[in-house]
Amino acid sequence: MEHRLTMAEGLIAIDWGTTNRRAYRLEPGGGRADLLEDGLGVLSVPRGGFPSEVERLRLRCGPGPMLLAGMVGSNRGWIETDYLPVPAGLEELARAIHWAAPGIGIVPGVAVTGAGADVMRGEEVQILGALADGLIDEGAPVCHPGTHAKWMRLDGAALGRFRTVMTGELFGLLKRDSILAELLAPAPADGPAFRAGVGHALAHCDLTAELFTIRARHLLEAAGPEWSAAYASGLLIGADVRIGLGWCGGEDDVAVIGRPDLAALYAAALACAGRGAIIVDGEAAFAAGMRALAEQLQ
Amino acid sequence: MEHRLTMAEGLIAIDWGTTNRRAYRLEPGGGRADLLEDGLGVLSVPRGGFPSEVERLRLRCGPGPMLLAGMVGSNRGWIETDYLPVPAGLEELARAIHWAAPGIGIVPGVAVTGAGADVMRGEEVQILGALADGLIDEGAPVCHPGTHAKWMRLDGAALGRFRTVMTGELFGLLKRDSILAELLAPAPADGPAFRAGVGHALAHCDLTAELFTIRARHLLEAAGPEWSAAYASGLLIGADVRIGLGWCGGEDDVAVIGRPDLAALYAAALACAGRGAIIVDGEAAFAAGMRALAEQLQ
Repeated sequence: MEHRLTMAEGLIAIDWGTTNRRAYRLEPGGGRADLLEDGLGVLSVPRGGFPSEVERLRLRCGPGPMLLAGMVGSNRGWIETDYLPVPAGLEELARAIHWAAPGIGIVPGVAVTGAGADVMRGEEVQILGALADGLIDEGAPVCHPGTHAKWMRLDGAALGRFRTVMTGELFGLLKRDSILAELLAPAPADGPAFRAGVGHALAHCDLTAELFTIRARHLLEAAGPEWSAAYASGLLIGADVRIGLGWCGGEDDVAVIGRPDLAALYAAALACAGRGAIIVDGEAAFAAGMRALAEQLQ
Repeated sequence: MEHRLTMAEGLIAIDWGTTNRRAYRLEPGGGRADLLEDGLGVLSVPRGGFPSEVERLRLRCGPGPMLLAGMVGSNRGWIETDYLPVPAGLEELARAIHWAAPGIGIVPGVAVTGAGADVMRGEEVQILGALADGLIDEGAPVCHPGTHAKWMRLDGAALGRFRTVMTGELFGLLKRDSILAELLAPAPADGPAFRAGVGHALAHCDLTAELFTIRARHLLEAAGPEWSAAYASGLLIGADVRIGLGWCGGEDDVAVIGRPDLAALYAAALACAGRGAIIVDGEAAFAAGMRALAEQLQ
Protein backbone atom coordinates (compact mmCIF):
# COMPACT_ATOMS: atom_id res chain seq x y z
CA MET A 1 0.00 0.00 0.00
CA GLU A 2 1.49 3.23 -1.10
CA HIS A 3 0.55 5.16 2.04
CA ARG A 4 2.99 3.04 4.07
CA LEU A 5 6.54 4.28 4.42
CA THR A 6 9.66 2.71 5.76
CA MET A 7 12.41 4.88 7.14
CA ALA A 8 14.98 2.12 6.52
CA GLU A 9 16.58 4.10 3.68
CA GLY A 10 15.93 7.41 5.35
CA LEU A 11 13.34 10.00 4.33
CA ILE A 12 13.93 12.74 1.77
CA ALA A 13 12.10 15.80 3.09
CA ILE A 14 11.62 18.76 0.76
CA ASP A 15 10.46 22.22 1.74
CA TRP A 16 9.46 23.78 -1.60
CA GLY A 17 8.20 27.30 -1.17
CA THR A 18 7.31 30.22 -3.39
CA THR A 19 10.87 31.48 -3.86
CA ASN A 20 13.18 28.93 -2.26
CA ARG A 21 13.66 25.19 -2.02
CA ARG A 22 15.46 23.03 0.54
CA ALA A 23 15.95 19.27 0.67
CA TYR A 24 17.16 17.13 3.58
CA ARG A 25 17.85 13.46 4.16
CA LEU A 26 16.44 12.39 7.53
CA GLU A 27 18.32 9.35 8.76
CA PRO A 28 16.53 6.47 10.52
CA GLY A 29 18.52 7.11 13.69
CA GLY A 30 17.54 10.77 13.91
CA GLY A 31 20.30 12.55 11.96
CA ARG A 32 19.67 15.21 9.34
CA ALA A 33 21.80 15.89 6.27
CA ASP A 34 21.28 18.99 4.12
CA LEU A 35 21.01 17.87 0.48
CA LEU A 36 20.36 21.10 -1.36
CA GLU A 37 19.19 24.67 -0.93
CA ASP A 38 18.50 26.88 -3.92
CA GLY A 39 16.28 29.61 -5.32
CA LEU A 40 14.20 27.28 -7.45
CA GLY A 41 10.91 28.06 -5.71
CA VAL A 42 7.66 27.12 -7.46
CA LEU A 43 7.48 30.49 -9.21
CA SER A 44 10.80 29.69 -10.94
CA VAL A 45 9.52 26.43 -12.42
CA PRO A 46 7.67 26.88 -15.72
CA ARG A 47 4.10 25.58 -15.82
CA GLY A 48 4.28 21.93 -16.83
CA GLY A 49 7.91 21.72 -15.73
CA PHE A 50 7.36 19.98 -12.40
CA PRO A 51 7.52 16.29 -13.45
CA SER A 52 10.98 16.70 -14.95
CA GLU A 53 12.09 18.89 -12.04
CA VAL A 54 10.98 16.19 -9.57
CA GLU A 55 12.98 13.63 -11.59
CA ARG A 56 16.06 15.84 -11.28
CA LEU A 57 15.43 16.14 -7.54
CA ARG A 58 15.27 12.36 -7.26
CA LEU A 59 18.61 12.02 -9.04
CA ARG A 60 20.22 14.62 -6.79
CA CYS A 61 18.70 13.34 -3.53
CA GLY A 62 19.01 9.59 -4.08
CA PRO A 63 16.61 6.74 -3.25
CA GLY A 64 14.07 6.46 -0.46
CA PRO A 65 10.61 7.79 0.25
CA MET A 66 10.14 11.46 -0.47
CA LEU A 67 7.77 13.90 1.22
CA LEU A 68 7.24 17.40 -0.17
CA ALA A 69 5.57 20.32 1.61
CA GLY A 70 4.87 23.97 0.85
CA MET A 71 3.68 25.80 -2.24
CA VAL A 72 4.63 22.78 -4.37
CA GLY A 73 1.11 21.58 -3.47
CA SER A 74 -0.60 24.82 -4.55
CA ASN A 75 -2.32 25.87 -7.77
CA ARG A 76 1.04 27.27 -8.84
CA GLY A 77 3.00 24.14 -7.89
CA TRP A 78 3.28 20.54 -9.07
CA ILE A 79 -0.10 19.12 -8.08
CA GLU A 80 -2.79 21.14 -6.31
CA THR A 81 -3.72 19.33 -3.12
CA ASP A 82 -6.74 20.13 -0.96
CA TYR A 83 -6.54 22.26 2.13
CA LEU A 84 -7.30 20.36 5.30
CA PRO A 85 -9.60 22.36 7.60
CA VAL A 86 -8.32 23.18 11.11
CA PRO A 87 -8.25 21.77 13.72
CA ALA A 88 -5.88 19.19 12.24
CA GLY A 89 -3.09 17.19 13.91
CA LEU A 90 -0.30 14.95 12.68
CA GLU A 91 -2.65 12.02 12.13
CA GLU A 92 -5.10 13.96 9.95
CA LEU A 93 -2.28 15.58 8.00
CA ALA A 94 -0.55 12.22 7.38
CA ARG A 95 -3.82 10.64 6.25
CA ALA A 96 -4.43 13.48 3.77
CA ILE A 97 -1.02 13.25 2.10
CA HIS A 98 -1.45 13.18 -1.67
CA TRP A 99 0.56 10.36 -3.26
CA ALA A 100 1.78 11.83 -6.52
CA ALA A 101 3.79 8.71 -7.40
CA PRO A 102 4.75 5.58 -5.45
CA GLY A 103 6.72 6.74 -2.43
CA ILE A 104 6.40 10.44 -3.30
CA GLY A 105 3.86 12.28 -1.17
CA ILE A 106 2.76 15.93 -1.02
CA VAL A 107 1.68 17.18 2.38
CA PRO A 108 -1.61 19.12 2.13
CA GLY A 109 -1.97 22.70 3.29
CA VAL A 110 -4.44 23.67 5.99
CA ALA A 111 -7.23 26.23 5.90
CA VAL A 112 -9.56 28.24 8.07
CA THR A 113 -12.91 28.21 6.28
CA GLY A 114 -15.87 30.57 6.67
CA ALA A 115 -15.39 33.90 8.45
CA GLY A 116 -11.69 34.75 8.74
CA ALA A 117 -10.84 32.53 5.76
CA ASP A 118 -7.12 31.77 5.63
CA VAL A 119 -4.67 29.32 4.09
CA MET A 120 -1.21 27.95 4.91
CA ARG A 121 1.20 25.63 3.08
CA GLY A 122 4.47 24.53 4.62
CA GLU A 123 4.34 26.26 7.99
CA GLU A 124 1.99 23.54 9.31
CA VAL A 125 4.82 20.98 9.12
CA GLN A 126 7.16 23.23 11.09
CA ILE A 127 4.58 24.00 13.77
CA LEU A 128 3.60 20.35 14.31
CA GLY A 129 7.28 19.39 14.22
CA ALA A 130 8.17 21.90 16.93
CA LEU A 131 5.33 20.49 19.01
CA ALA A 132 6.31 16.85 18.35
CA ASP A 133 9.88 17.56 19.45
CA GLY A 134 8.72 19.33 22.59
CA LEU A 135 10.20 22.66 21.46
CA ILE A 136 6.88 24.43 22.07
CA ASP A 137 3.94 23.81 24.41
CA GLU A 138 0.40 23.00 23.32
CA GLY A 139 -0.93 26.27 24.68
CA ALA A 140 1.68 28.56 23.16
CA PRO A 141 0.81 31.30 20.72
CA VAL A 142 2.85 30.62 17.58
CA CYS A 143 4.32 33.15 15.16
CA HIS A 144 5.87 32.05 11.88
CA PRO A 145 7.43 35.15 10.26
CA GLY A 146 8.09 35.32 6.52
CA THR A 147 6.63 36.46 3.22
CA HIS A 148 3.20 35.72 4.65
CA ALA A 149 3.61 35.66 8.43
CA LYS A 150 1.31 33.28 10.31
CA TRP A 151 -0.06 33.59 13.85
CA MET A 152 -1.74 30.60 15.46
CA ARG A 153 -3.13 29.33 18.74
CA LEU A 154 -2.68 25.56 18.88
CA ASP A 155 -5.84 23.56 19.51
CA GLY A 156 -4.43 20.99 21.92
CA ALA A 157 -1.92 19.02 19.86
CA ALA A 158 -3.58 20.15 16.62
CA LEU A 159 -3.18 23.15 14.37
CA GLY A 160 -5.79 25.74 15.33
CA ARG A 161 -7.26 28.79 13.65
CA PHE A 162 -4.66 31.20 12.30
CA ARG A 163 -4.22 34.64 10.74
CA THR A 164 -1.82 35.58 7.92
CA VAL A 165 -0.11 38.99 7.73
CA MET A 166 1.53 40.03 4.44
CA THR A 167 4.52 41.61 6.15
CA GLY A 168 7.41 40.12 4.17
CA GLU A 169 5.71 40.53 0.82
CA LEU A 170 4.82 44.19 1.47
CA PHE A 171 8.37 44.97 2.57
CA GLY A 172 9.65 43.31 -0.60
CA LEU A 173 7.27 45.30 -2.82
CA LEU A 174 8.25 48.57 -1.17
CA LYS A 175 11.92 47.71 -1.47
CA ARG A 176 11.74 46.64 -5.10
CA ASP A 177 9.49 49.14 -6.73
CA SER A 178 8.20 52.02 -4.59
CA ILE A 179 9.22 55.63 -4.09
CA LEU A 180 11.05 54.35 -0.97
CA ALA A 181 13.00 51.69 -2.91
CA GLU A 182 16.46 53.27 -2.77
CA LEU A 183 16.01 54.06 0.93
CA LEU A 184 15.15 50.45 1.77
CA ALA A 185 18.16 48.81 0.12
CA PRO A 186 20.13 47.84 3.27
CA ALA A 187 19.11 44.73 5.23
CA PRO A 188 17.11 46.00 8.22
CA ALA A 189 18.89 45.62 11.54
CA ASP A 190 17.64 45.74 15.12
CA GLY A 191 18.51 49.00 16.86
CA PRO A 192 16.97 52.36 17.79
CA ALA A 193 15.45 52.97 14.31
CA PHE A 194 13.88 49.50 14.15
CA ARG A 195 12.49 49.85 17.67
CA ALA A 196 11.16 53.34 16.96
CA GLY A 197 9.23 51.86 14.03
CA VAL A 198 7.93 49.01 16.17
CA GLY A 199 6.93 51.43 18.92
CA HIS A 200 5.05 53.62 16.47
CA ALA A 201 3.18 50.68 14.94
CA LEU A 202 2.27 49.22 18.34
CA ALA A 203 0.77 52.54 19.45
CA HIS A 204 -0.79 53.86 16.22
CA CYS A 205 -2.99 52.54 13.48
CA ASP A 206 -1.64 54.51 10.52
CA LEU A 207 0.92 52.26 8.79
CA THR A 208 0.14 53.43 5.24
CA ALA A 209 0.75 57.04 6.33
CA GLU A 210 3.74 56.58 8.62
CA LEU A 211 5.65 54.76 5.84
CA PHE A 212 5.65 57.98 3.80
CA THR A 213 7.35 59.92 6.58
CA ILE A 214 10.46 57.93 5.63
CA ARG A 215 10.61 59.84 2.36
CA ALA A 216 9.88 63.15 4.05
CA ARG A 217 12.63 62.63 6.64
CA HIS A 218 15.04 61.76 3.87
CA LEU A 219 14.22 64.96 1.95
CA LEU A 220 13.97 67.29 4.95
CA GLU A 221 16.37 65.78 7.48
CA ALA A 222 18.73 63.74 5.27
CA ALA A 223 17.75 60.47 6.99
CA GLY A 224 19.77 57.74 5.27
CA PRO A 225 19.09 54.22 4.03
CA GLU A 226 20.22 52.34 7.17
CA TRP A 227 17.80 54.33 9.32
CA SER A 228 15.04 54.14 6.70
CA ALA A 229 15.21 50.39 6.11
CA ALA A 230 15.25 49.64 9.83
CA TYR A 231 12.38 52.06 10.55
CA ALA A 232 10.23 50.65 7.71
CA SER A 233 10.92 47.09 8.85
CA GLY A 234 10.03 48.12 12.40
CA LEU A 235 6.75 49.64 11.24
CA LEU A 236 5.73 46.55 9.29
CA ILE A 237 6.86 44.02 11.90
CA GLY A 238 5.40 46.15 14.69
CA ALA A 239 2.03 46.19 12.92
CA ASP A 240 2.34 42.43 12.42
CA VAL A 241 3.05 41.85 16.11
CA ARG A 242 0.16 44.11 17.14
CA ILE A 243 -2.21 42.18 14.87
CA GLY A 244 -0.83 38.79 15.89
CA LEU A 245 -0.90 39.41 19.64
CA GLY A 246 -4.42 40.77 19.38
CA TRP A 247 -5.43 37.72 17.42
CA CYS A 248 -3.77 35.13 19.70
CA GLY A 249 -4.69 36.84 22.97
CA GLY A 250 -3.21 35.73 26.29
CA GLU A 251 0.05 36.77 27.87
CA ASP A 252 2.30 33.74 27.31
CA ASP A 253 5.65 33.87 25.63
CA VAL A 254 5.33 33.54 21.85
CA ALA A 255 6.98 30.67 19.97
CA VAL A 256 8.68 32.24 16.95
CA ILE A 257 9.45 29.55 14.37
CA GLY A 258 11.47 30.43 11.29
CA ARG A 259 14.63 31.86 9.80
CA PRO A 260 16.91 32.86 12.69
CA ASP A 261 17.61 36.44 11.46
CA LEU A 262 13.92 37.16 10.99
CA ALA A 263 12.94 35.42 14.22
CA ALA A 264 15.41 37.67 16.07
CA LEU A 265 13.73 40.82 14.66
CA TYR A 266 10.31 39.48 15.72
CA ALA A 267 11.66 38.65 19.19
CA ALA A 268 12.92 42.24 19.45
CA ALA A 269 9.52 43.56 18.37
CA LEU A 270 7.76 41.27 20.85
CA ALA A 271 10.04 42.59 23.59
CA CYS A 272 8.89 46.15 22.69
CA ALA A 273 5.34 44.88 23.27
CA GLY A 274 6.37 43.42 26.64
CA ARG A 275 6.20 39.82 25.46
CA GLY A 276 8.80 37.10 25.64
CA ALA A 277 9.77 34.93 22.69
CA ILE A 278 10.92 31.34 22.34
CA ILE A 279 12.89 31.13 19.10
CA VAL A 280 12.68 27.81 17.23
CA ASP A 281 14.88 27.16 14.20
CA GLY A 282 12.59 26.62 11.21
CA GLU A 283 14.79 24.00 9.54
CA ALA A 284 14.97 21.86 12.68
CA ALA A 285 11.21 22.17 13.13
CA PHE A 286 10.60 21.20 9.51
CA ALA A 287 12.75 18.08 9.83
CA ALA A 288 10.98 17.13 13.05
CA GLY A 289 7.59 17.60 11.41
CA MET A 290 8.41 15.50 8.37
CA ARG A 291 9.84 12.75 10.55
CA ALA A 292 6.73 12.79 12.75
CA LEU A 293 4.51 12.54 9.65
CA ALA A 294 6.55 9.63 8.32
CA GLU A 295 6.16 7.86 11.66
CA GLN A 296 2.39 8.11 11.27
CA LEU A 297 2.73 6.17 8.00
CA GLN A 298 4.89 3.29 9.19
CA MET B 1 12.09 92.05 -13.41
CA GLU B 2 11.58 88.40 -14.10
CA HIS B 3 9.25 87.75 -11.18
CA ARG B 4 6.59 89.92 -12.87
CA LEU B 5 4.11 88.25 -15.18
CA THR B 6 1.58 89.62 -17.59
CA MET B 7 -1.46 87.57 -18.46
CA ALA B 8 -1.87 89.48 -21.76
CA GLU B 9 -0.80 86.45 -23.79
CA GLY B 10 -2.39 84.01 -21.39
CA LEU B 11 -0.59 81.72 -18.97
CA ILE B 12 0.68 78.24 -19.79
CA ALA B 13 0.08 76.13 -16.68
CA ILE B 14 1.72 72.71 -16.44
CA ASP B 15 0.93 69.99 -13.92
CA TRP B 16 3.93 67.67 -14.21
CA GLY B 17 3.62 64.74 -11.87
CA THR B 18 5.42 61.47 -11.26
CA THR B 19 3.61 59.51 -13.97
CA ASN B 20 1.48 62.01 -15.91
CA ARG B 21 1.69 65.47 -17.40
CA ARG B 22 -0.99 67.99 -18.34
CA ALA B 23 -0.70 71.46 -19.88
CA TYR B 24 -3.34 74.18 -20.13
CA ARG B 25 -3.54 77.67 -21.59
CA LEU B 26 -5.33 79.97 -19.16
CA GLU B 27 -6.85 82.89 -21.09
CA PRO B 28 -6.77 86.45 -19.71
CA GLY B 29 -10.57 86.52 -19.58
CA GLY B 30 -10.86 83.34 -17.51
CA GLY B 31 -11.10 80.59 -20.13
CA ARG B 32 -9.08 77.39 -20.04
CA ALA B 33 -7.88 75.38 -23.03
CA ASP B 34 -6.39 71.91 -22.65
CA LEU B 35 -3.08 71.82 -24.53
CA LEU B 36 -1.81 68.33 -23.84
CA GLU B 37 -2.14 65.35 -21.55
CA ASP B 38 0.28 62.44 -21.70
CA GLY B 39 2.15 59.83 -19.70
CA LEU B 40 5.45 61.69 -19.78
CA GLY B 41 5.71 62.08 -16.00
CA VAL B 42 9.08 62.96 -14.50
CA LEU B 43 10.02 59.30 -14.10
CA SER B 44 9.73 58.90 -17.91
CA VAL B 45 12.22 61.69 -18.62
CA PRO B 46 15.86 60.54 -18.55
CA ARG B 47 18.12 62.35 -16.10
CA GLY B 48 19.51 65.38 -17.91
CA GLY B 49 16.64 65.29 -20.41
CA PHE B 50 14.55 68.08 -18.91
CA PRO B 51 15.98 71.16 -20.74
CA SER B 52 15.22 69.67 -24.15
CA GLU B 53 11.84 68.39 -22.95
CA VAL B 54 10.93 71.89 -21.73
CA GLU B 55 11.92 73.28 -25.16
CA ARG B 56 9.58 70.77 -26.81
CA LEU B 57 6.83 71.80 -24.39
CA ARG B 58 7.38 75.47 -25.35
CA LEU B 59 7.04 74.62 -29.04
CA ARG B 60 3.85 72.66 -28.43
CA CYS B 61 2.27 75.12 -26.02
CA GLY B 62 3.19 78.40 -27.73
CA PRO B 63 4.36 81.74 -26.30
CA GLY B 64 3.52 83.34 -22.98
CA PRO B 65 4.65 82.95 -19.40
CA MET B 66 4.85 79.36 -18.19
CA LEU B 67 4.33 78.05 -14.66
CA LEU B 68 5.12 74.45 -13.76
CA ALA B 69 4.08 72.58 -10.62
CA GLY B 70 4.42 69.07 -9.23
CA MET B 71 7.27 66.58 -9.16
CA VAL B 72 9.03 68.53 -11.92
CA GLY B 73 10.43 70.57 -9.01
CA SER B 74 11.67 67.51 -7.10
CA ASN B 75 15.06 65.79 -6.91
CA ARG B 76 13.85 63.54 -9.71
CA GLY B 77 12.55 66.43 -11.87
CA TRP B 78 14.00 69.35 -13.80
CA ILE B 79 15.31 71.58 -11.02
CA GLU B 80 14.98 70.75 -7.33
CA THR B 81 13.22 73.63 -5.63
CA ASP B 82 12.97 74.12 -1.89
CA TYR B 83 9.98 73.09 0.14
CA LEU B 84 8.14 76.03 1.68
CA PRO B 85 7.19 75.31 5.30
CA VAL B 86 3.49 75.46 6.21
CA PRO B 87 1.55 77.58 6.95
CA ALA B 88 1.93 79.09 3.48
CA GLY B 89 -0.63 80.98 1.38
CA LEU B 90 -0.75 82.20 -2.22
CA GLU B 91 1.50 85.15 -1.50
CA GLU B 92 4.27 83.07 0.07
CA LEU B 93 4.02 80.45 -2.65
CA ALA B 94 4.20 83.08 -5.44
CA ARG B 95 7.19 84.75 -3.81
CA ALA B 96 9.04 81.42 -3.61
CA ILE B 97 8.57 80.49 -7.27
CA HIS B 98 11.89 79.42 -8.74
CA TRP B 99 12.61 81.19 -12.05
CA ALA B 100 14.31 78.57 -14.15
CA ALA B 101 14.47 80.84 -17.21
CA PRO B 102 12.92 84.22 -18.06
CA GLY B 103 9.15 83.74 -17.85
CA ILE B 104 9.39 80.08 -16.81
CA GLY B 105 8.73 79.47 -13.13
CA ILE B 106 8.55 76.33 -10.99
CA VAL B 107 6.16 76.45 -8.07
CA PRO B 108 7.83 75.14 -4.88
CA GLY B 109 6.43 72.24 -2.87
CA VAL B 110 5.41 72.66 0.75
CA ALA B 111 6.57 70.75 3.81
CA VAL B 112 5.74 70.00 7.39
CA THR B 113 9.04 70.05 9.27
CA GLY B 114 9.93 68.49 12.62
CA ALA B 115 7.62 65.89 14.15
CA GLY B 116 5.21 64.54 11.55
CA ALA B 117 7.56 65.49 8.70
CA ASP B 118 5.76 65.49 5.37
CA VAL B 119 6.10 66.84 1.85
CA MET B 120 3.77 67.77 -1.02
CA ARG B 121 4.34 68.89 -4.62
CA GLY B 122 1.47 69.83 -6.91
CA GLU B 123 -1.51 69.33 -4.62
CA GLU B 124 -0.79 72.72 -2.95
CA VAL B 125 -1.74 74.53 -6.17
CA GLN B 126 -5.05 72.66 -6.41
CA ILE B 127 -5.96 73.25 -2.77
CA LEU B 128 -5.18 77.00 -2.87
CA GLY B 129 -6.97 77.21 -6.23
CA ALA B 130 -10.13 75.59 -4.85
CA LEU B 131 -10.00 78.07 -1.99
CA ALA B 132 -9.36 81.07 -4.28
CA ASP B 133 -12.34 80.14 -6.43
CA GLY B 134 -14.60 79.71 -3.40
CA LEU B 135 -15.08 76.00 -4.08
CA ILE B 136 -14.05 75.13 -0.52
CA ASP B 137 -14.23 76.98 2.80
CA GLU B 138 -11.26 78.00 4.90
CA GLY B 139 -12.22 75.64 7.69
CA ALA B 140 -12.82 72.56 5.56
CA PRO B 141 -10.83 69.36 5.98
CA VAL B 142 -9.29 68.64 2.59
CA CYS B 143 -8.57 65.26 1.05
CA HIS B 144 -6.54 64.94 -2.15
CA PRO B 145 -6.65 61.25 -3.19
CA GLY B 146 -3.99 59.78 -5.46
CA THR B 147 -0.68 57.90 -5.50
CA HIS B 148 0.16 59.68 -2.25
CA ALA B 149 -3.13 60.87 -0.79
CA LYS B 150 -2.97 64.09 1.23
CA TRP B 151 -5.16 65.20 4.15
CA MET B 152 -5.02 68.81 5.33
CA ARG B 153 -6.70 71.27 7.62
CA LEU B 154 -6.38 74.73 6.10
CA ASP B 155 -4.80 77.36 8.34
CA GLY B 156 -7.11 80.26 7.53
CA ALA B 157 -6.45 81.00 3.86
CA ALA B 158 -3.10 79.22 4.02
CA LEU B 159 -2.00 75.62 3.57
CA GLY B 160 -1.83 73.98 7.00
CA ARG B 161 -0.19 70.85 8.38
CA PHE B 162 -0.94 67.74 6.38
CA ARG B 163 -0.52 63.97 6.38
CA THR B 164 0.29 61.75 3.38
CA VAL B 165 -1.11 58.22 2.99
CA MET B 166 0.50 55.90 0.40
CA THR B 167 -2.83 54.44 -0.71
CA GLY B 168 -2.55 54.67 -4.49
CA GLU B 169 1.04 53.51 -4.60
CA LEU B 170 0.36 50.48 -2.38
CA PHE B 171 -2.64 49.48 -4.47
CA GLY B 172 -0.48 49.77 -7.58
CA LEU B 173 2.30 47.64 -6.06
CA LEU B 174 -0.16 44.93 -5.01
CA LYS B 175 -1.80 44.99 -8.42
CA ARG B 176 1.44 44.83 -10.36
CA ASP B 177 3.57 42.39 -8.52
CA SER B 178 2.04 40.64 -5.50
CA ILE B 179 0.43 37.27 -4.91
CA LEU B 180 -2.89 39.14 -5.33
CA ALA B 181 -1.92 40.65 -8.72
CA GLU B 182 -4.21 38.61 -10.95
CA LEU B 183 -7.11 39.14 -8.56
CA LEU B 184 -6.69 42.92 -8.62
CA ALA B 185 -6.70 43.38 -12.39
CA PRO B 186 -10.18 44.95 -12.80
CA ALA B 187 -10.67 48.65 -12.04
CA PRO B 188 -12.23 48.79 -8.56
CA ALA B 189 -15.85 49.91 -8.52
CA ASP B 190 -18.12 51.17 -5.75
CA GLY B 191 -20.59 48.54 -4.56
CA PRO B 192 -21.09 45.98 -1.78
CA ALA B 193 -17.53 44.56 -2.02
CA PHE B 194 -15.92 48.02 -1.94
CA ARG B 195 -18.08 49.09 1.00
CA ALA B 196 -17.40 45.85 2.87
CA GLY B 197 -13.68 46.62 2.56
CA VAL B 198 -14.20 50.19 3.73
CA GLY B 199 -16.33 49.00 6.63
CA HIS B 200 -13.68 46.52 7.73
CA ALA B 201 -10.89 49.09 7.55
CA LEU B 202 -12.89 51.71 9.47
CA ALA B 203 -13.56 49.24 12.28
CA HIS B 204 -10.31 47.25 12.44
CA CYS B 205 -6.61 47.97 12.49
CA ASP B 206 -5.30 44.96 10.59
CA LEU B 207 -4.89 46.04 6.96
CA THR B 208 -1.78 43.95 6.25
CA ALA B 209 -3.63 40.83 7.45
CA GLU B 210 -7.07 41.46 5.97
CA LEU B 211 -5.54 41.92 2.49
CA PHE B 212 -4.45 38.26 2.54
CA THR B 213 -8.01 37.05 3.12
CA ILE B 214 -8.58 38.04 -0.52
CA ARG B 215 -6.33 35.19 -1.60
CA ALA B 216 -7.90 32.78 0.88
CA ARG B 217 -11.44 33.62 -0.29
CA HIS B 218 -10.35 33.10 -3.87
CA LEU B 219 -8.91 29.67 -3.08
CA LEU B 220 -11.63 28.50 -0.70
CA GLU B 221 -14.75 30.29 -1.92
CA ALA B 222 -13.88 31.05 -5.55
CA ALA B 223 -14.16 34.82 -4.98
CA GLY B 224 -13.39 36.46 -8.34
CA PRO B 225 -11.37 39.45 -9.52
CA GLU B 226 -14.23 42.00 -9.53
CA TRP B 227 -14.99 41.27 -5.89
CA SER B 228 -11.30 41.09 -4.97
CA ALA B 229 -10.25 44.37 -6.60
CA ALA B 230 -13.18 46.25 -5.08
CA TYR B 231 -12.61 44.75 -1.61
CA ALA B 232 -8.87 45.53 -1.70
CA SER B 233 -9.54 49.08 -2.85
CA GLY B 234 -12.13 49.43 -0.08
CA LEU B 235 -9.64 48.22 2.53
CA LEU B 236 -6.93 50.65 1.41
CA ILE B 237 -9.24 53.66 0.93
CA GLY B 238 -11.09 52.82 4.15
CA ALA B 239 -7.79 52.80 6.06
CA ASP B 240 -6.89 56.08 4.34
CA VAL B 241 -10.19 57.70 5.36
CA ARG B 242 -9.85 56.44 8.95
CA ILE B 243 -6.34 57.93 9.16
CA GLY B 244 -7.34 61.15 7.42
CA LEU B 245 -10.45 61.81 9.48
CA GLY B 246 -8.55 61.07 12.67
CA TRP B 247 -5.87 63.46 11.57
CA CYS B 248 -8.16 66.31 10.47
CA GLY B 249 -10.64 65.94 13.34
CA GLY B 250 -13.95 67.78 13.38
CA GLU B 251 -17.23 66.77 11.82
CA ASP B 252 -17.47 68.99 8.72
CA ASP B 253 -17.96 67.73 5.23
CA VAL B 254 -14.65 66.88 3.58
CA ALA B 255 -13.51 68.64 0.39
CA VAL B 256 -12.25 65.90 -1.93
CA ILE B 257 -10.10 67.43 -4.67
CA GLY B 258 -8.85 65.27 -7.51
CA ARG B 259 -9.65 62.91 -10.36
CA PRO B 260 -13.45 62.49 -10.51
CA ASP B 261 -13.46 58.64 -10.49
CA LEU B 262 -11.17 58.47 -7.49
CA ALA B 263 -12.95 61.31 -5.70
CA ALA B 264 -16.23 59.38 -6.09
CA LEU B 265 -14.71 56.30 -4.38
CA TYR B 266 -13.46 58.48 -1.52
CA ALA B 267 -16.87 60.13 -1.21
CA ALA B 268 -18.43 56.65 -0.95
CA ALA B 269 -15.90 55.68 1.72
CA LEU B 270 -16.53 58.93 3.61
CA ALA B 271 -20.27 58.17 3.50
CA CYS B 272 -19.54 54.79 5.15
CA ALA B 273 -17.83 56.80 7.91
CA GLY B 274 -20.88 59.05 8.23
CA ARG B 275 -19.19 62.05 6.63
CA GLY B 276 -20.29 64.19 3.73
CA ALA B 277 -18.02 65.06 0.80
CA ILE B 278 -17.72 68.10 -1.46
CA ILE B 279 -16.13 66.89 -4.69
CA VAL B 280 -13.91 69.40 -6.49
CA ASP B 281 -12.53 68.64 -9.94
CA GLY B 282 -8.74 68.59 -9.68
CA GLU B 283 -8.12 70.10 -13.14
CA ALA B 284 -10.40 73.09 -12.45
CA ALA B 285 -8.74 73.58 -9.07
CA PHE B 286 -5.28 73.44 -10.63
CA ALA B 287 -6.18 76.07 -13.23
CA ALA B 288 -7.66 78.30 -10.54
CA GLY B 289 -4.54 77.94 -8.41
CA MET B 290 -2.13 78.77 -11.22
CA ARG B 291 -4.22 81.78 -12.22
CA ALA B 292 -4.29 82.98 -8.62
CA LEU B 293 -0.51 82.60 -8.37
CA ALA B 294 -0.04 84.55 -11.61
CA GLU B 295 -2.22 87.33 -10.26
CA GLN B 296 0.13 87.64 -7.29
CA LEU B 297 2.94 88.32 -9.75
CA GLN B 298 1.30 91.02 -11.86
